[in-house]
Amino acid sequence: MKKPWSGRFKESTKKTVETFTASVSFDKRLWKYDIEGSIAHAKMLGKQKIISSKDTLLILRGLNKIKQEILRGKFRFSDDLEDIHMHIESALIKKLGTTGGKLHTARSRNDQIALDLRLFLRDEIGQILKLLKNIQMVLVAMAEKYIDTVVPGYTHLQRAQPVLLSHYLLSYFEMFKRDSKRFEDCVKRVNVLPLGSAALAGTTLPINRKYVARLLNFPAVSENSIDAVSDRDFISEFLSVSSLLMVHLSRLSEDLIIWNSEEFGFIELPDGYSTGSSIMPQKKNPDVLELIRGKTGRVFGNLTTLFVALKGLPLAYNRDLQEDKEPLFDTVDTVKACLGVLAEMMPKIRFNKAAMEKAAEGGFSTATDLAEYLVRKGVSFRKAHEITGKIVKYCLKKKKTFRQLDLKEYRLFSELIKKDVFNHLTVEASINKKNSYGGTSKKRVLKRIEAIKTEK
Amino acid sequence: MKKPWSGRFKESTKKTVETFTASVSFDKRLWKYDIEGSIAHAKMLGKQKIISSKDTLLILRGLNKIKQEILRGKFRFSDDLEDIHMHIESALIKKLGTTGGKLHTARSRNDQIALDLRLFLRDEIGQILKLLKNIQMVLVAMAEKYIDTVVPGYTHLQRAQPVLLSHYLLSYFEMFKRDSKRFEDCVKRVNVLPLGSAALAGTTLPINRKYVARLLNFPAVSENSIDAVSDRDFISEFLSVSSLLMVHLSRLSEDLIIWNSEEFGFIELPDGYSTGSSIMPQKKNPDVLELIRGKTGRVFGNLTTLFVALKGLPLAYNRDLQEDKEPLFDTVDTVKACLGVLAEMMPKIRFNKAAMEKAAEGGFSTATDLAEYLVRKGVSFRKAHEITGKIVKYCLKKKKTFRQLDLKEYRLFSELIKKDVFNHLTVEASINKKNSYGGTSKKRVLKRIEAIKTEK
Amino acid sequence: MKKPWSGRFKESTKKTVETFTASVSFDKRLWKYDIEGSIAHAKMLGKQKIISSKDTLLILRGLNKIKQEILRGKFRFSDDLEDIHMHIESALIKKLGTTGGKLHTARSRNDQIALDLRLFLRDEIGQILKLLKNIQMVLVAMAEKYIDTVVPGYTHLQRAQPVLLSHYLLSYFEMFKRDSKRFEDCVKRVNVLPLGSAALAGTTLPINRKYVARLLNFPAVSENSIDAVSDRDFISEFLSVSSLLMVHLSRLSEDLIIWNSEEFGFIELPDGYSTGSSIMPQKKNPDVLELIRGKTGRVFGNLTTLFVALKGLPLAYNRDLQEDKEPLFDTVDTVKACLGVLAEMMPKIRFNKAAMEKAAEGGFSTATDLAEYLVRKGVSFRKAHEITGKIVKYCLKKKKTFRQLDLKEYRLFSELIKKDVFNHLTVEASINKKNSYGGTSKKRVLKRIEAIKTEK
Amino acid sequence: MKKPWSGRFKESTKKTVETFTASVSFDKRLWKYDIEGSIAHAKMLGKQKIISSKDTLLILRGLNKIKQEILRGKFRFSDDLEDIHMHIESALIKKLGTTGGKLHTARSRNDQIALDLRLFLRDEIGQILKLLKNIQMVLVAMAEKYIDTVVPGYTHLQRAQPVLLSHYLLSYFEMFKRDSKRFEDCVKRVNVLPLGSAALAGTTLPINRKYVARLLNFPAVSENSIDAVSDRDFISEFLSVSSLLMVHLSRLSEDLIIWNSEEFGFIELPDGYSTGSSIMPQKKNPDVLELIRGKTGRVFGNLTTLFVALKGLPLAYNRDLQEDKEPLFDTVDTVKACLGVLAEMMPKIRFNKAAMEKAAEGGFSTATDLAEYLVRKGVSFRKAHEITGKIVKYCLKKKKTFRQLDLKEYRLFSELIKKDVFNHLTVEASINKKNSYGGTSKKRVLKRIEAIKTEK
Repeated sequence: MKKPWSGRFKESTKKTVETFTASVSFDKRLWKYDIEGSIAHAKMLGKQKIISSKDTLLILRGLNKIKQEILRGKFRFSDDLEDIHMHIESALIKKLGTTGGKLHTARSRNDQIALDLRLFLRDEIGQILKLLKNIQMVLVAMAEKYIDTVVPGYTHLQRAQPVLLSHYLLSYFEMFKRDSKRFEDCVKRVNVLPLGSAALAGTTLPINRKYVARLLNFPAVSENSIDAVSDRDFISEFLSVSSLLMVHLSRLSEDLIIWNSEEFGFIELPDGYSTGSSIMPQKKNPDVLELIRGKTGRVFGNLTTLFVALKGLPLAYNRDLQEDKEPLFDTVDTVKACLGVLAEMMPKIRFNKAAMEKAAEGGFSTATDLAEYLVRKGVSFRKAHEITGKIVKYCLKKKKTFRQLDLKEYRLFSELIKKDVFNHLTVEASINKKNSYGGTSKKRVLKRIEAIKTEK
Repeated sequence: MKKPWSGRFKESTKKTVETFTASVSFDKRLWKYDIEGSIAHAKMLGKQKIISSKDTLLILRGLNKIKQEILRGKFRFSDDLEDIHMHIESALIKKLGTTGGKLHTARSRNDQIALDLRLFLRDEIGQILKLLKNIQMVLVAMAEKYIDTVVPGYTHLQRAQPVLLSHYLLSYFEMFKRDSKRFEDCVKRVNVLPLGSAALAGTTLPINRKYVARLLNFPAVSENSIDAVSDRDFISEFLSVSSLLMVHLSRLSEDLIIWNSEEFGFIELPDGYSTGSSIMPQKKNPDVLELIRGKTGRVFGNLTTLFVALKGLPLAYNRDLQEDKEPLFDTVDTVKACLGVLAEMMPKIRFNKAAMEKAAEGGFSTATDLAEYLVRKGVSFRKAHEITGKIVKYCLKKKKTFRQLDLKEYRLFSELIKKDVFNHLTVEASINKKNSYGGTSKKRVLKRIEAIKTEK
Repeated sequence: MKKPWSGRFKESTKKTVETFTASVSFDKRLWKYDIEGSIAHAKMLGKQKIISSKDTLLILRGLNKIKQEILRGKFRFSDDLEDIHMHIESALIKKLGTTGGKLHTARSRNDQIALDLRLFLRDEIGQILKLLKNIQMVLVAMAEKYIDTVVPGYTHLQRAQPVLLSHYLLSYFEMFKRDSKRFEDCVKRVNVLPLGSAALAGTTLPINRKYVARLLNFPAVSENSIDAVSDRDFISEFLSVSSLLMVHLSRLSEDLIIWNSEEFGFIELPDGYSTGSSIMPQKKNPDVLELIRGKTGRVFGNLTTLFVALKGLPLAYNRDLQEDKEPLFDTVDTVKACLGVLAEMMPKIRFNKAAMEKAAEGGFSTATDLAEYLVRKGVSFRKAHEITGKIVKYCLKKKKTFRQLDLKEYRLFSELIKKDVFNHLTVEASINKKNSYGGTSKKRVLKRIEAIKTEK
Repeated sequence: MKKPWSGRFKESTKKTVETFTASVSFDKRLWKYDIEGSIAHAKMLGKQKIISSKDTLLILRGLNKIKQEILRGKFRFSDDLEDIHMHIESALIKKLGTTGGKLHTARSRNDQIALDLRLFLRDEIGQILKLLKNIQMVLVAMAEKYIDTVVPGYTHLQRAQPVLLSHYLLSYFEMFKRDSKRFEDCVKRVNVLPLGSAALAGTTLPINRKYVARLLNFPAVSENSIDAVSDRDFISEFLSVSSLLMVHLSRLSEDLIIWNSEEFGFIELPDGYSTGSSIMPQKKNPDVLELIRGKTGRVFGNLTTLFVALKGLPLAYNRDLQEDKEPLFDTVDTVKACLGVLAEMMPKIRFNKAAMEKAAEGGFSTATDLAEYLVRKGVSFRKAHEITGKIVKYCLKKKKTFRQLDLKEYRLFSELIKKDVFNHLTVEASINKKNSYGGTSKKRVLKRIEAIKTEK
C-alpha cells in the first residue's frame, strides 16, 4: 500500500518493517479521541478560512460516518496503514477524495498523538477518580458498621496495640484520599492542548489554538511547540501515581490474605470471591487479593518501561515514544479492574469478631498503656518502659497475662502501681483512652467519619 | 550496650545483628530535624503539664547542648545505639538522668522518624525548587541572548525544521516549570505532622498535636495514626518527581553531547567543564553531561528500591521501611548536584552559530513550508505533501537544494508555484512565519520571554 | 459454568471475579505445550497402571482431537473456564465422560503450568539462539566485506582513535556471543521436569517421573516438590538475559541513529527500512532503530514486573504467579522481532566510506600514536602524553592538523621527534600498528574472522 | 592541582566539576586490585622490554610501598585526583619521578578500570559462593535435625498439604543451589582479561596480553578491544543473579516473619536476633528478617540503576559508566551481609513442633489423600475430587474434621470408601505416602539429604 508520505521514497516499505513499526493493533483504542480531535481541528480550519466551509462540512460529515463505521464494527484495521491516524485520514480521503486530504493541514501526527493521549488520559483519570471515591465510601460505610469491632494493630507483624477495625479501615481511606489528590494534580498537567504545535515548530498557517482548546475543553494551551510534541511526562506522572496507588492496594491485599489464613482466622471471604484448586478438594483461595498484589509488579513494570524509553532521547519526537501507549493502556485497565473488584468484594468479607478481639487481648498489647499509667504516676517514660518490660518478662516466665497478675505481683516492680491499674489493661480501655487527635478511640474515629461525610 | 528497650529480653543483641540493623551511619544526617522535633515535642509536653516546666527547661537546654556538640563534631556515633533517635535520647539521659528519660513520653520512634523525614524533605524540596528556579532563569537569559541564533529542530535525529535556539532552550524552561509544579504538589503531602501518632494507635496522654504543628510550621495534622506511621508515599512521590526531572536532564545532556561532537560541531564546552584522557592526549570530553545522563539511572534505581521495599508490606510499621532513607538521601544529593553544575555550565557553552545555521539550511528543512505554500495556493495538504516529496526526490537526484532549483524546475511539479515561493524557502522565513501560538517565530518567542519575566 | 473444583463451595464465582482472575486470554498461547505435557502424563499413568491402557488410549486420542480442533480454529475459549488447563481438561471430559476425568490424576495445575512454561521457554530460547547465531553471521559477513573501511572509534562521542569498521562490527559479535552463552546457561535451568510435584508435596500414587522426563526430553527431574511449583527463577533469569541483550541492541541502534544523521552522514538506511512524516515531506526516519532502542524499556519493564511480583511471596504457589506469563510472552516476541528485523536490515545499510575516513582523520585521532612514538624514543609515557597534548594545543591555535605541521614545528616540543614520525600519523598506520591481541589492525581482525569461522 | 591529562587544556578544571566528577570516594575500594593489575602490567612491560628491567624493578617496589601506605592508613585520598587510578599513578610519580610516568604505557584508564572491576568481582563472587555453600549446609543440617517435624505446606497462604519441615527447608537448598550455579556461570564471563585493549583500539607497542592473563590468573583474554572497554554486562549479570538470590531470601524471610507471628506461633526467634520497641515494652520484633526482605528492593534498584545507565549509550567508553560502581559495591555488601546474618540466625530458631503439627492437621489438609484413595478404588480423579469436596462441605457444616467422621458418614458420599480410609487421613500417612520422586515422604527426604552430602 502506498504510504501518504512516500513522495520522496524510491522503494516501498518492507513487509517486516511494516509489521515491526505498526502500532494500530493497540493505538486503535484511541479512535474516538482521534476523531474528536479531528473534528475540532476541522472546525478551526473552517473558522480560520484555511479550508472552505463546504470542505469543513464534508470533512465533519465524513468523520462522523467513520465514527459510525467503527462503532458498528465495520471499519477495517490493517498494519500497512501504520497507526490509527493514518487509518482515519485514509478512510476520509477514500470517502471525500481531495477534500479528505485537507484535514491534515497545519497538523502533524506528532501533535495529533499528543492530543489523543491527553484526551484519553483525561477521561480515564476521571473514571479512576470515581472508582477511588467509591472505594473510599465503601471503607467509610464499613468503618461505621464495624465501629465496635476490635483488631490487633500490628507492627513487624507482631501484635502492637489494639485498635478499632474502623480505624484500620480508615487508614486506607486516607491513603486513597491522597492518591486521589495526586491524580487530580496530574490532570492539571494532562489538561493542556498540544494541537497546533505541528511537527515541532508550529505552522505558517493562521490557526487558532485557543478556539480548539475551547472546543475540546482544555483550560490551557501549550506554550512551546518543541516541548509539546516531545515530552511524555504527563504519562510518566500518571504511571507514578498509579504505582503509588498499587502499593497501597498491595498492602491492603497482603493484610487481608494474612487475616484470611486459618491461623489468623480474622476474616472469611465469600465463596463467590474465592477460587478452588484443581487437585486439593478442600481449598478456598483468596485469588482476587493475590492478583491485586501481583499486579503491583505490572504497574511498576509499566513505569519502568516508559522511564527507560524516555531516558536520554534527543529532542523532539523520536519513534521510541510509540512505546508509551501499551504501558499506559495496561495501567489504566489494571488500576480500574483492581479498584472495581476490591470495592465489590470488601463489604462482603465476613469478619470474625471473636477471633480478632481475642487476638487483640493477647501479646501484652496493653503494655504501652501500663507504661503510660506509670508516667501519670510520675515515673519517667524511659523508666516506665523498663518496668513494664520486666513485668512482661515475669509474665512470660509465669505464663500469665497482665490481667492474671495480682496487685501484689505488680507492686514487686513498682510501688506506684495501685488498684486502678486494672482499668488500663483491658482492650476497651486501651482503645478508648487513645483519644489523641488521629488516635483510635471510638470518639475520635466517629468524629473522623462525621468529618469525612461532611467534607463534600 | 544495654538497649533502652531491653526490659523484656533475656539475651543481649548479637554484634552481627547490631551491625546489620544499625542505621545511624546514614540516618545521623537527620540529627538537626530530630532535635528540632524533640524540642517542639518537649515544649508541648510542658505546656500540657505532662512533664513539669522545670523538666521541660532542662530537656530543652540538654537538647541544645547536644546540638552544639554535634555541630562542633564532638558527638560520638556508634552502631550499638542503632539510630539517630537513640543516640540523642541516650545523650540526653546521660546528661540529665531520669529527666532525660521523660522526653520520649507519648512518642514512638515510628512517629518520630516520620516527622524527621518530613522536616528534612520539606527543607530539601525548598532547595531543589530554588535550584530549578535558577536553571529556569539561566535558560531565559540564554534565550534572550541567542534570540537571533538558529538551530535545526530534529525529529528522529533527522533535521526537521529550523527553530530558534531560544525556542529550543525555552522548551526546557517549560519542562522544568512543570517539574517545579510537581515538587510543589508533593510538598503539600509532605507538609503534614505525623508526631502524636505514637506507635500506631495514638496515646492515652493529653497531648496537643495542633500546638506541635504550629511550632514546626505544619499546616496540617495527620488524621489517622496507623496511616501516619506506616506510609512512605510522600517519599515515593518525591522520588517519582525526581525521576521525571532526571528524564528531562538526561535529554538535555544527550542533545548537548551530540551537539558537542566534532561532526555536529554546534557547541564547545569550556575547558574548565571538560576532562581529558589518561591515554589520548587530544581528548576533551563532556564528562559532566555524561554523568548527569548516567545518574538518571541512579534516581530510577532509588525509586525502584523504595517501591519494591513497600510492595506487599502489612500495616503498620515494618523494619523494611528503614530502607527508605538511603534512596531518599542519594536522590536529594544527586538532583541538587546535577541542577547546580548544569546551571553553572550552561551559560559558558560557546555556540557555533555558523555551523548551526548551515545545518539548519540543509536537509530540505523548509519542505513543510513549501507544502504549506501550496496549501495557500489551494492545494489540499495531502497533495501538497506529495508534490513537495517529489521535489525533494528530484533535488536528491540532481544533488541540488531547494534554493538551487529555478522556477521552471518547480513548475514541473505544480503550476501554482510562483516566484514568491523563494520567500518561503529561507531559514529565516521558515522560522518567522511559524507564528502560531507556541511556535518558533521570533515574535512569539520574545512574547513568551516577556510573559515569563512578568509571571513572577 | 460449574467449576471442576466447586465441590466444597456454596456459591458460584461472581462474573467480575471470573473476568478478573481468568488467564485464558493469554495463556491459551501455551495450548500446544499443555497437550504435549498431558500426552506424556497420560502415557505414564498408563504405563504405571494408574489408569487402564484402554483409558490411556482414549485420552491420547481425545487430546489429539483437541489439538486438531485448536489448529483448525474450532476450539472455543471462554473466561468462565479460567485457564488453558481447564479448557483442555473440560473438552476432554466432554468428549470422554468419566475417562476424561482421569487425566488429572496425580497432577495439579501447579506442576502442570510449571511444565508448560518450561516447554514453551525451552523452545523459544532455541529460536532466539538461532536468531542470535544469524545476526552474528551477518556481522561477520559484513566485517569481511568492509575489511578496508575505516571509522572513527569514539569515546564520550568524541573521536578517539581510528578503527576498522570490521572491528567495530565484531565488537557486537562478541556481545551477542556472550548473550548466546547466557541463554544457553539459562536453558540448563529451564530444562528440568517439574511434573509429578503435584500441588506441592508430591503424590501418593506410584508415578514415574523419569519416564515422563524421557518422553519430554528433559535431562533432569526436579528434586523438591515445593520448590518445583513455587519458583519462577527460570523465567526471571530469561528476562534478565533478554534485558542484557536489549542493552546491546539499544547501543547498536543508538550508534546507527547517530551515524545516520546528516551531520555524521556515515550511513544511509535503505528506503524500505525507513519511514516518512505525515507533515514533513523531506523526512526519512530510522524508525526501526528507534523502536529497537525504545523496546529496551519494555523488556526491562517486564523484568521489573516479575521481580516485583515474586518479592516477598510466601511458599509455595500463590496466584500472584499468574503475572509471570504476559511479561514472558511479550519479551519473547520483542526479542525475536528486534533480532529478526535488525539482521535483515544490517546488510542493506549503505556505508559512506569517504565520510567515515575523513572523520577518522580529524580530531587528532592519532595523538596516542604520536605519544607511543615518543615512548619508543625513550620518553616516559606520562611525559609523552604531555608533549603530545601541547602539540595538540599548538595545532588548535594554528588551526592545523598533525600532518600539516612540519618537522621543525614538531621539534619545538621534543628533539626526539624525527622524520619517521610522519609514518605514525596516518589513519592507516594508526590502525595497522594496533596489532596487540584484540586490537584493530587488519591482520588481527582478519585472524579473528578466521577463528570465528572455524569455531563451529 | 594539575591534571596528568591537562596538556591540551587552556583552563583548569572548575572545583565544582572536580567534585561532581570525582569517583575516588567510592572507587578507592578497588585500590588493591588496581595495584595488583599494575604490578602485572609493569612485569609485562619489563618482560617485553617496553621499559627497562631497572625501571620495572623500581615501579614494582614503588607500587608495593604504596600498598603498604594504604594498608597502614597513611595514604591521602582527594577529589582533585579524580579516581583511584590517578591516585596511585600520581603517588608513584611522586616517588620515582620520570620512571613512575612509565607505568601507564600501553594502558588507558578504560581497560584499567575494566580490569580492576573484574578482579574485584571475581574475588567477591568467590566469597558469595562460600556464603551460599554455608547457608546450604546450614539448611541440610537443619533438615536432618528436624526430620520428624511436620509443618503445613501452604498455597495461597492457605493450608494445602502437610509436609516435613525438612522438605520445606530443602526447597531453599535447591534455590540456593541454582543461585550458586548462576554465580558460577557469571564468573566464566567475568574471568576474561581486558587489559591491553588500551583506550579502545589496542596499542602499537609490543605488549603480551597472554602473559598478563597468566600472572593474574585469567583463563581468557578479551577478543575485541572496543568491546572490552565499553561493556559492563558482566556487572549487569552479577546484579541480575543477585536480584534473583534476593527474591529467594525475601520469600524465606516472609515465611519466617509470618510463622513468627503470635497467630501462627510456629517459631520463636532468639532474643539476640530480635529487637525491641522504643515505646511498646512487650515487643520483640523480627527486624533481621524484615531488613533482608526490605533490602531486596535495594538490589533490584541497583540493577535498574545500571541497566538504565547503559541503555542507549554509543560505543565505546562513556563517563556514564562510572555509575556502575556504587550499585555493584552496594550489592556485594548487601548480599554478603544478608547471607551471613541469616546463616547465623537460622539454626538458632526455636520451632514450636506442637503448633506446627496441630496446624498441619487442620484445614482438611489430607483431602487430596482422600481423593487419591478414591482413585485407587477406581474413581476417576475428577469425580474423586468432587466427592471429597462435598465431604469437606459436609464437615464444615457439621463442624467436624475428617477424622471425626465415622465410616457411615463417609459412605453417604461413596460406597467405595472402606475402613482402610482412616489410614490415609493422618498427617503422618499423608506425608509418608507422598513417596514420588521429589516428594515429601521421610524416605525421599532422607535420600535427598544423603545425595546432597555425597555430591561433594
